[in-house]
Amino acid sequence: MDSRDKLERLFAMFPGIGPRQAKRFVYFLLTRNSGFTSELALALSDLKKNISQCNSCYRFFPNDGNTACQVCRSVNTDQKTILIVEKDVDFENVHKSGFYNGRFFVLGGLLPILEEEPAKKIRARELVAEVLRQAETGNLKEIIIALSLNGEGENTYQYIKGILQPLTQKYSINLSTLGRGLSTGSEIEYSDGETLKYAIENRK
Amino acid sequence: MDSRDKLERLFAMFPGIGPRQAKRFVYFLLTRNSGFTSELALALSDLKKNISQCNSCYRFFPNDGNTACQVCRSVNTDQKTILIVEKDVDFENVHKSGFYNGRFFVLGGLLPILEEEPAKKIRARELVAEVLRQAETGNLKEIIIALSLNGEGENTYQYIKGILQPLTQKYSINLSTLGRGLSTGSEIEYSDGETLKYAIENRK
Amino acid sequence: MDSRDKLERLFAMFPGIGPRQAKRFVYFLLTRNSGFTSELALALSDLKKNISQCNSCYRFFPNDGNTACQVCRSVNTDQKTILIVEKDVDFENVHKSGFYNGRFFVLGGLLPILEEEPAKKIRARELVAEVLRQAETGNLKEIIIALSLNGEGENTYQYIKGILQPLTQKYSINLSTLGRGLSTGSEIEYSDGETLKYAIENRK
Amino acid sequence: MDSRDKLERLFAMFPGIGPRQAKRFVYFLLTRNSGFTSELALALSDLKKNISQCNSCYRFFPNDGNTACQVCRSVNTDQKTILIVEKDVDFENVHKSGFYNGRFFVLGGLLPILEEEPAKKIRARELVAEVLRQAETGNLKEIIIALSLNGEGENTYQYIKGILQPLTQKYSINLSTLGRGLSTGSEIEYSDGETLKYAIENRK
Repeated sequence: MDSRDKLERLFAMFPGIGPRQAKRFVYFLLTRNSGFTSELALALSDLKKNISQCNSCYRFFPNDGNTACQVCRSVNTDQKTILIVEKDVDFENVHKSGFYNGRFFVLGGLLPILEEEPAKKIRARELVAEVLRQAETGNLKEIIIALSLNGEGENTYQYIKGILQPLTQKYSINLSTLGRGLSTGSEIEYSDGETLKYAIENRK
Repeated sequence: MDSRDKLERLFAMFPGIGPRQAKRFVYFLLTRNSGFTSELALALSDLKKNISQCNSCYRFFPNDGNTACQVCRSVNTDQKTILIVEKDVDFENVHKSGFYNGRFFVLGGLLPILEEEPAKKIRARELVAEVLRQAETGNLKEIIIALSLNGEGENTYQYIKGILQPLTQKYSINLSTLGRGLSTGSEIEYSDGETLKYAIENRK
Repeated sequence: MDSRDKLERLFAMFPGIGPRQAKRFVYFLLTRNSGFTSELALALSDLKKNISQCNSCYRFFPNDGNTACQVCRSVNTDQKTILIVEKDVDFENVHKSGFYNGRFFVLGGLLPILEEEPAKKIRARELVAEVLRQAETGNLKEIIIALSLNGEGENTYQYIKGILQPLTQKYSINLSTLGRGLSTGSEIEYSDGETLKYAIENRK
Repeated sequence: MDSRDKLERLFAMFPGIGPRQAKRFVYFLLTRNSGFTSELALALSDLKKNISQCNSCYRFFPNDGNTACQVCRSVNTDQKTILIVEKDVDFENVHKSGFYNGRFFVLGGLLPILEEEPAKKIRARELVAEVLRQAETGNLKEIIIALSLNGEGENTYQYIKGILQPLTQKYSINLSTLGRGLSTGSEIEYSDGETLKYAIENRK
């Protein structure tokens, strides 16, 4: 296979990219000057060198010689709560909202319904270890599960609740999930019954 | 103008219908047998005769000789709350959800930002009159404002709050809005900051 | 069933209209003044009275006491060609383009693949009768089949060709179809092989 | 800037890719094993080494030690025609259709209306040189312009016609464009007047 076909094949594995757009990518690269391609190849080679994975919350962060990321190390981070998210972009979205300043944990995925090996699909063992560590040293008071409100999110929530229960009971840690109700832009006409139920219950 | 052009013009005023689809409607009617068109004309003529507007909540309901609709008249309706919605379909959606069994009030619209004559755009006087009547006779304890979460909804909410304040103070009526947070199907990655704020605050 | 439900049911039979939009239509009518609904009912009642079907090309036209439409009667219409279209809007589109000034014939539909009773689905007998009449009295030289370029259009084309063949042979009438190639807005990248084939063959 | 930001910035320059998807790409790469990223970097570095640009038709092709691509060199290629396309994917689409077996020329772009330096935007000089070379040595009889049917395509067509005219006159070369008419899937109802005009003119 020539390097063009190989590149097309690799780009077609990118999220949301089909064969036709992969082909466009390669053609785009061919018509750039060679500086662009070199710069891209270099940035790719550097990526894994320059980006570390935090050994506490498991998100990726710019390598600065530390094993934990800036949020996990910061003295300004509230040590009493851990907010569990599915993936790095979820962390980024909650972090940049500015309405939460505690610790995080990135699960690395969600569990499909009837998943047979849940502990291999998400960072289950790592989560238990991290909660244990924070409970013993960090005065942990609450774990907030912040997963998407769909079938896989609900399934993952139930699984996490189960594996964390021994720890939350032993250390009296509160386990909560994000509040439900109308989200910005919601229209009453199109809201589902469950959302209306929470919106009515949580009225204020 | 012939009756085909006239029909096209009238159909083009229907919500969501452009000139092309209006034309298709007329063509569709021309190719039906004449029974269909007669049935439609008859149902149209009967519509206003057979449908009344409730003099209490202002929604439309099948004419049964009463001035108030079944929900407003029912002894099973909780008289202590009124839920204010924009339009009939919002009423229907909340009603069929089964999570609310109090009274309703249909405003008949939302107020655009900077609306100069708000009292003409929505049933403002009718709302004040209805709240007064329920407060004096019905033991009203709470008014729940259930409008869409967008600019016009927020604007309308502020206006309603203002005109109801004398009554809510005098009769000690609680004024609330629907709870906010993640709605069914929400993904953390795509949730806006305001929704995340409420979701974190209202966690449970 | 009350007249609201009946109207919803009738509107839901309109092309492209689902139950939700049918409901909106009725709500829209309820909130209009009663003049609007009366005007609509009247226009509907008048429709079949005021619109005739041409006994030559079978399109609908404003009733003017004639049995044939203005195009079929006009002395400016070229009597040597008949262009066969599927439906009235196709007639209108070709007519208003101004690039054809011959006679028309509206088939009234297309034949699904494997249609068992083709002669009942489209105006097959009427087409044969009309071609015969034009051939005997009108000096007919060419029949242009102008159907959509999809499976049903192709299927209908084959069927029509078959039933017209005795006449076209007997009266030496030319049978043609619309030319193929790139249509306005076509991009070479996205054009299918068949279109490219015709575009290359018909280059000029 | 760290290599993650740099990669995001580079990916955001890819055709059709916005900042959010660029971020997803980087996250996708971070969660692949490092073999994937290395393979991608290698394929990128190899791309310009392994792919040459044909010095005759200017398309990209796998480097095989020749200066002209397989199509330009093949003895089966009809030397009497050149088909001019905008870009490599247009070449591929026409080539794989199998309905054309002459020479090609890739312009490398289209000219925006009012483009001030057309000769810098597309391979104008190269086209003139190639046509001259084929006219003198290859017995060239026809140049087929196969550009997209939109404003830029039309503008480019006029410009090319102008710069090629001295050659086409001197060497008696025919200059043609792709045929127009209904393309596969076209519906009569939605066809524009210009397409109907060509479809009627080119009927057969």
